Amino acid sequence: MKNEYQPLTATLLDTLATIVGPDNLSTAEADRSQRAFDVSSHTPRLSDVVVWPQTADQVAAVLKFANEQQIPVTAWGAGTSVEGNPIPLFGGILLSTEKMNAVIQVHADDLQVTVEAGKKYKELNQELEPLGLFFPPDPGGDATIGGMLANNAAGPKAVKYGACKDNVLRCQVALADGRIIQVGSRSIKQSSGYDLLHLFVGSEGTLGVITEATLKLLPLPKYVSAVVASFDAVGAAVQAVVKIKGGGLDPAALEFIDAQTIAMINTVGGLSLDHNHTLFMEFHATHESALHLGLERVKQICTELGARTFTATTDPAERKKLWYGRHHAYDYAQEYYVDKKLLTLDAAIPISHYPAIVEQIEQSLSKHNVAGHMLGHAGDGNMHVLLPYDDSNYGRAVAFHKELIQRALELGGTATGEHGVGIGKVGYMRQEHGPALDVMRSIKQTLDPNNILNPGKIFPGERTSS
Amino acid sequence: MKNEYQPLTATLLDTLATIVGPDNLSTAEADRSQRAFDVSSHTPRLSDVVVWPQTADQVAAVLKFANEQQIPVTAWGAGTSVEGNPIPLFGGILLSTEKMNAVIQVHADDLQVTVEAGKKYKELNQELEPLGLFFPPDPGGDATIGGMLANNAAGPKAVKYGACKDNVLRCQVALADGRIIQVGSRSIKQSSGYDLLHLFVGSEGTLGVITEATLKLLPLPKYVSAVVASFDAVGAAVQAVVKIKGGGLDPAALEFIDAQTIAMINTVGGLSLDHNHTLFMEFHATHESALHLGLERVKQICTELGARTFTATTDPAERKKLWYGRHHAYDYAQEYYVDKKLLTLDAAIPISHYPAIVEQIEQSLSKHNVAGHMLGHAGDGNMHVLLPYDDSNYGRAVAFHKELIQRALELGGTATGEHGVGIGKVGYMRQEHGPALDVMRSIKQTLDPNNILNPGKIFPGERTSS
Repeated sequence: MKNEYQPLTATLLDTLATIVGPDNLSTAEADRSQRAFDVSSHTPRLSDVVVWPQTADQVAAVLKFANEQQIPVTAWGAGTSVEGNPIPLFGGILLSTEKMNAVIQVHADDLQVTVEAGKKYKELNQELEPLGLFFPPDPGGDATIGGMLANNAAGPKAVKYGACKDNVLRCQVALADGRIIQVGSRSIKQSSGYDLLHLFVGSEGTLGVITEATLKLLPLPKYVSAVVASFDAVGAAVQAVVKIKGGGLDPAALEFIDAQTIAMINTVGGLSLDHNHTLFMEFHATHESALHLGLERVKQICTELGARTFTATTDPAERKKLWYGRHHAYDYAQEYYVDKKLLTLDAAIPISHYPAIVEQIEQSLSKHNVAGHMLGHAGDGNMHVLLPYDDSNYGRAVAFHKELIQRALELGGTATGEHGVGIGKVGYMRQEHGPALDVMRSIKQTLDPNNILNPGKIFPGERTSS
Repeated sequence: MKNEYQPLTATLLDTLATIVGPDNLSTAEADRSQRAFDVSSHTPRLSDVVVWPQTADQVAAVLKFANEQQIPVTAWGAGTSVEGNPIPLFGGILLSTEKMNAVIQVHADDLQVTVEAGKKYKELNQELEPLGLFFPPDPGGDATIGGMLANNAAGPKAVKYGACKDNVLRCQVALADGRIIQVGSRSIKQSSGYDLLHLFVGSEGTLGVITEATLKLLPLPKYVSAVVASFDAVGAAVQAVVKIKGGGLDPAALEFIDAQTIAMINTVGGLSLDHNHTLFMEFHATHESALHLGLERVKQICTELGARTFTATTDPAERKKLWYGRHHAYDYAQEYYVDKKLLTLDAAIPISHYPAIVEQIEQSLSKHNVAGHMLGHAGDGNMHVLLPYDDSNYGRAVAFHKELIQRALELGGTATGEHGVGIGKVGYMRQEHGPALDVMRSIKQTLDPNNILNPGKIFPGERTSS
């Protein structure tokens, strides 16, 4: 795919300024350098100009202009991604959605909301709270809806509520040639032609720029419980996960932390969690009695599987306390490894293979002599490993990462469960997708023949016949 | 798009027989005429040959051969579709998946099953029952998994469990050029490149042929209740739907039948349902107490909204009795209009617009002087109208249909909620999708440049510039 572009001359910058308005464009280094990196370890790269379009028409006009002039365009939400997804690898235009952050309409009766792409999800959920509604995906960072959709982001609650792709009904998308299309429908059901909605969701701004979205909302859970259970063996912990899901207990979060990470959490946080492999769980219910009956069954399952400890509560303050170690695990790791940076690795596999991936991680950490902490969304087979690194061990950390993804793919899993491909996972795409990668590439070439949209992402640098 | 093809000469038939084996090919009229129509009113069309490949490799080889020879190929599951989706409009090869009906593997711990495309979903669910698991989509007819996925089929339970697209994790797909690709992943979470899975699901065999799929399973519901509630006014019935969903009561079915149809059901079935707009509901729960608490809340909502009658039960025999009228509505209509055929119309809208679509249907039936019966999946905004027709009123029935879809589109809905585009909805695609239809077409041209895959479906006959 083409990756040689034209420079942004003064004349072209003037034209761009007429599209978005002079106040919505900046070549100042401060503006560009703030938007040159995400939270990953990938090398920052400056764009040549930042633009803040204020309407979908302006987004489309910027794309059309860039396409005609052969200038790369990288869409930008909040820079909270973790695989270098919005780093403008070839410079050019950084298209920020920061000024498109309106809630366009709440459709309360339909349990839907239509927002502009730059709206942040935490802010959205605060505004929806008085209506008793919420948008479930919870990636953690202060992400925008557009960025979350572009990366198909997810978080701990995905085990019950799904990822972004499961919680969106329609999008407005600006294409490279300046067309604006509507994909999906406000109708919950649609069986009308190709599902373009899910083609753009997760495409990381390489096929078009999402400008607006209608999201599914849910009633806020009425009753919530929290559980922490520890196990000697990973196998028993995973069997608990399997039985809890298979028993229809529908957990709202089902997190795994390995024993070594529990020790780190206890040390830094002054906590006294049982030093064993541990499951952190949350359950949501419409009735209090259902919550209690569910907890009884969960306790029975964990006890039968030999849980060393089992603590459950429905009290809001106690719940916070119980989950405190899990909630602060990332901060604790940063404190624990104060002189290092952290890699946050992401892989996902069928749940039944969780013991195999844990075994692989333990062996591989030991082999490469690197520290690593497992924080997994076990309920949906997603595994994160936090890897402290500096110059002294970066190479070994990378070698560990390669083995992790290799093993995940061998186990029928994926190179990325929720972080997206960005820069970091490009090298695994051929192995994961085989000839399906060529189909992805042919769709990319159809919609973005000049490869102006977020170039350098998703597709490895292999040359195609064209 | 191209729609002139080469004839299947004796030599070509010989080649085809070497691909699938002589026992898996037939030019007998009996075999072809059995596979020339679905359950819709669309005119049957004979293929030139039926083939029954037995492996994905054979499917791929048939497609490659057909692509090289410029022969249309229409995939066939069980012929239970309702928009002419698998009618071979241009003759050629009818590719039946009937002999590819194995359960490849049950992954019980992962709540998944991998099946060949020709497996029938009712049979699959019978086989899964001893494991306490089921595949939720329930379109009604004796459909194959491949056909259901190709049409993104759904049924009454979609309000809780989603349509086919929400219940599939990966597919194996044979492309027009003979490549076989894997799309999606057995990992529940995946954020790795473009979502090709959902591009093929719902594409009605126009982009490739699904040969195998890994489906999501759920634990069978432990406790089930049934409710029937009747209302004077559509608005009150819809408000009940909104409040039941907004209250987190998570109905497993939420069906609407208009008063006139209740009268027809009472007459034919000898039943005594209250002659009013009626909601039929079902709820699933893991605990009996949750079921009862839910029913109390549902009763409260319906009563506050002025329900004329409210009946609820958790007894299996009583449940069957309560839903008897709904379950047999289609049969009753066939009996009631014994000299006519039935059109089953399909549209879907945001739920809040249900009163508007009911009003439109009443006015439009009256205007065109046709009888019509509303059987809607109100919980997800899907509306079906059964329209008895014969030569005397077919034109008026078609005029009614046009107005129905027109109104659904005006209300932000879709021309088809669960039946697919097939032949019957082709004429609405431009209006529903606007320039997004051109994007669909460009993807079609990329993957099937010779337009051999199920030609005549989804895309209107407009000429493109190419």
